[in-house]
Amino acid sequence: MDALDVLLGDLVVANRILAHEGVVDAYGHVSMRHPGNPERYFLSCSRSPELVRRGDIMEFELDGTPVGSDARTPYLERYIHGATYEKHQEVNAVVHSHAEEVLPYSITEEPLRPVIHSAGVIGLEVPVWDIADRFGDTTLLVVNMDQGRDLAGCLGENRVALMRGHGFAATGRSLSEVVRVSVMLPRNARILTTALQLGKVKALSPGEVAKRLMMNPDGPEFWRAWEYWASRAGCADMLKGHPQSPESRG
Amino acid sequence: MDALDVLLGDLVVANRILAHEGVVDAYGHVSMRHPGNPERYFLSCSRSPELVRRGDIMEFELDGTPVGSDARTPYLERYIHGATYEKHQEVNAVVHSHAEEVLPYSITEEPLRPVIHSAGVIGLEVPVWDIADRFGDTTLLVVNMDQGRDLAGCLGENRVALMRGHGFAATGRSLSEVVRVSVMLPRNARILTTALQLGKVKALSPGEVAKRLMMNPDGPEFWRAWEYWASRAGCADMLKGHPQSPESRG
Amino acid sequence: MDALDVLLGDLVVANRILAHEGVVDAYGHVSMRHPGNPERYFLSCSRSPELVRRGDIMEFELDGTPVGSDARTPYLERYIHGATYEKHQEVNAVVHSHAEEVLPYSITEEPLRPVIHSAGVIGLEVPVWDIADRFGDTTLLVVNMDQGRDLAGCLGENRVALMRGHGFAATGRSLSEVVRVSVMLPRNARILTTALQLGKVKALSPGEVAKRLMMNPDGPEFWRAWEYWASRAGCADMLKGHPQSPESRG
Amino acid sequence: MDALDVLLGDLVVANRILAHEGVVDAYGHVSMRHPGNPERYFLSCSRSPELVRRGDIMEFELDGTPVGSDARTPYLERYIHGATYEKHQEVNAVVHSHAEEVLPYSITEEPLRPVIHSAGVIGLEVPVWDIADRFGDTTLLVVNMDQGRDLAGCLGENRVALMRGHGFAATGRSLSEVVRVSVMLPRNARILTTALQLGKVKALSPGEVAKRLMMNPDGPEFWRAWEYWASRAGCADMLKGHPQSPESRG
Repeated sequence: MDALDVLLGDLVVANRILAHEGVVDAYGHVSMRHPGNPERYFLSCSRSPELVRRGDIMEFELDGTPVGSDARTPYLERYIHGATYEKHQEVNAVVHSHAEEVLPYSITEEPLRPVIHSAGVIGLEVPVWDIADRFGDTTLLVVNMDQGRDLAGCLGENRVALMRGHGFAATGRSLSEVVRVSVMLPRNARILTTALQLGKVKALSPGEVAKRLMMNPDGPEFWRAWEYWASRAGCADMLKGHPQSPESRG
Repeated sequence: MDALDVLLGDLVVANRILAHEGVVDAYGHVSMRHPGNPERYFLSCSRSPELVRRGDIMEFELDGTPVGSDARTPYLERYIHGATYEKHQEVNAVVHSHAEEVLPYSITEEPLRPVIHSAGVIGLEVPVWDIADRFGDTTLLVVNMDQGRDLAGCLGENRVALMRGHGFAATGRSLSEVVRVSVMLPRNARILTTALQLGKVKALSPGEVAKRLMMNPDGPEFWRAWEYWASRAGCADMLKGHPQSPESRG
Repeated sequence: MDALDVLLGDLVVANRILAHEGVVDAYGHVSMRHPGNPERYFLSCSRSPELVRRGDIMEFELDGTPVGSDARTPYLERYIHGATYEKHQEVNAVVHSHAEEVLPYSITEEPLRPVIHSAGVIGLEVPVWDIADRFGDTTLLVVNMDQGRDLAGCLGENRVALMRGHGFAATGRSLSEVVRVSVMLPRNARILTTALQLGKVKALSPGEVAKRLMMNPDGPEFWRAWEYWASRAGCADMLKGHPQSPESRG
Repeated sequence: MDALDVLLGDLVVANRILAHEGVVDAYGHVSMRHPGNPERYFLSCSRSPELVRRGDIMEFELDGTPVGSDARTPYLERYIHGATYEKHQEVNAVVHSHAEEVLPYSITEEPLRPVIHSAGVIGLEVPVWDIADRFGDTTLLVVNMDQGRDLAGCLGENRVALMRGHGFAATGRSLSEVVRVSVMLPRNARILTTALQLGKVKALSPGEVAKRLMMNPDGPEFWRAWEYWASRAGCADMLKGHPQSPESRG
């Protein structure tokens, strides 16, 4: 397997992990930037992430045009991905999700902020993007590059943006990072929601978030979670011989 | 298979999906209007939806009388279905459910309204019907046409009516639509309940709900969910060769 | 199989249902009065309900003494059962449970009352028994007949009593009724807890509860739930040929 | 099997139970003190508890140095274990967990205290340790003996200490006791959180907690839970012939 093959396998595993951990269901998707061509990205055709197989992965131009003569139905909201890659050069992977626990923070004034150490990875602030601000009454779906670019602009220097009444867009420097962000965001939301019922909440300090963001995303602690999530999602076999596994790294 | 056979298979799948997604349990049911005779509908005999098989489907007159000499025990509350078909010509499928997350909105003054995009399908307003208003102290069950008609009247132009201390009745132009409504209603309730703890909530605007209601219910995004739910419910095999599948539509 | 064999099989199924529905875990138990000798009852030896098999059932005198030379370890808290049978002649089955959703109502002043139709079976009121009132500082366990009788007295004419910081004792005229009470009590608690967050709650009226309590516990609707719960708990095979099944009743 | 072999098997079972009961996920760990050498302890190499096998167990000096020439990657936070064994001679087993339900009590002023009988085992008070108090902005991880000793000091005479925005450290005189503490702590937290929404809460009295702490941790009631949890976690086979099983004790 060459490096691209490994990454495309990782993309399938990422789909399965996000489905199994409840981050996505029939809807939601995960993409990665083409490692050899930053003007393109990979994303499944219109299929629920739990059911995505290697053969479902399509290749897209940043503007959402499928590469080649691929006639399969793409996701309607693929513009979330392309517009993010276009604006944010350091981003190599994107997740769009409707995770329930996060949605209350998109329709109220309460800010979602990291309160547990493992959620430092989401960054210090999580802006909320309201599609109605510029596009008025819509289905709330991001169905063109204009809308995608507006969302990518709202994201700014942050890792995640909430989408009002809809979900979130998360980014990472790698697939494993964006999966981590996407799993920890709902967890942090659940804990914050409960803590707010108990009283005044102590969030992570800016310095603590900075320390968390500086952690090596390729450390053995992070592979441990990837291995665990993949095993739970029934993908343990797909990790055999993976170049990042402890066995391969010796 | 002729068209009716396909639809009766869909009705079995609908039973299984609603059971697996937690919308119904030992109780609750889903019916569809006879596509060739609007004065009749199909509904399982008295059996938990998770256990319903093709041979359990019975045919009823709108007044709840079984067609032919069918001696199997019907659901006590089948009048919910017939009375709704009688009053609402555009309705072709009905679900009755006791979903827990929705029930708090049936016993308090807090209105259930759509706050997430995928719940636009439930419509802008969800009235609450209290059987006691006209029928006094009962078991709360809808056990005759008078009660069914009172509920159908309360439904009005809406997609869903809550039943005080009991559950809800949901309607759709098709089985897949009523399943969608029935899955999204509890989800929307969970999110609204949490959001209300956080502060003032921004619901979908009337214009947004209208846009959602205008979406094509036969689009590939909707089939994607049906396929996902059916797969989770162990019914993937029943979708093979289905005329709405992407394979059949080419 | 004679009638007692059928009932002892039902007792095993009741154990499995309560475990699968999350009413009991490693702890909690279900008993039935001996149908031929009201001064005795049947209860498993000290084993988690999910693991109880036919051979684990022991027979006890009402005072908790094992019948015959049975040397197996009994449940420490079997006195809950015997004392209830002693005081309440109409009770033929008892459940003791630590179900989480119910416990908050045992340690606060908020009364647990039926707010959904299916919970009418728990009765209009649910008293709270505090072992400390008469017995001071204990492990909170009911470990002798004195404590059991005090609890049975608190139960009074009600179906269920909560035990402060510990759980509940539920009763029924039959195994299927006490299982129904025990499954609906936590459900009703979840819904009431959520509703109380939303505002003022409308409970079932006394007349509605009375109508629910008058429902025939042997109706097909109740068998439907028993069949559903048993199937989910992996006990469908144990229902074959059961005298109450629709097949046997013709 | 000699006694140490039995205990190392128990340590594997403890890992699986904690994973299956949701106390740990990709992260969190459980250790036991070497029964023959109190200056050493056993802990898995860096692997998710659900995946830990007998061959993954490593042996450490109290300062966290692996014994012998073991080159496997250890857990970063093993200092939690060694520092606790160093300071608390009566402790023979330690768990570190990020259990979600407990975390809100680590970031608010609301004290976590036992409110249900089965949680008496956590002790009357649960102090909260904030790593920032002495170490300022960190990743919140306990990565050296200084930090571990500070946490062990905060623990004091208690069974459990919460770690702000991170998780908890729990202790026991045996593996089964620390597993019990770790399972009951989140359960107690869930019940307390709900009860606080309902109103003023009655906690266990100091005398009740004392009675619970005096219970014999080797009683049949405690083995019943270990058997139940192990069975649920798929480890029933590992209990066969165990010296504490009822069969072995006759």
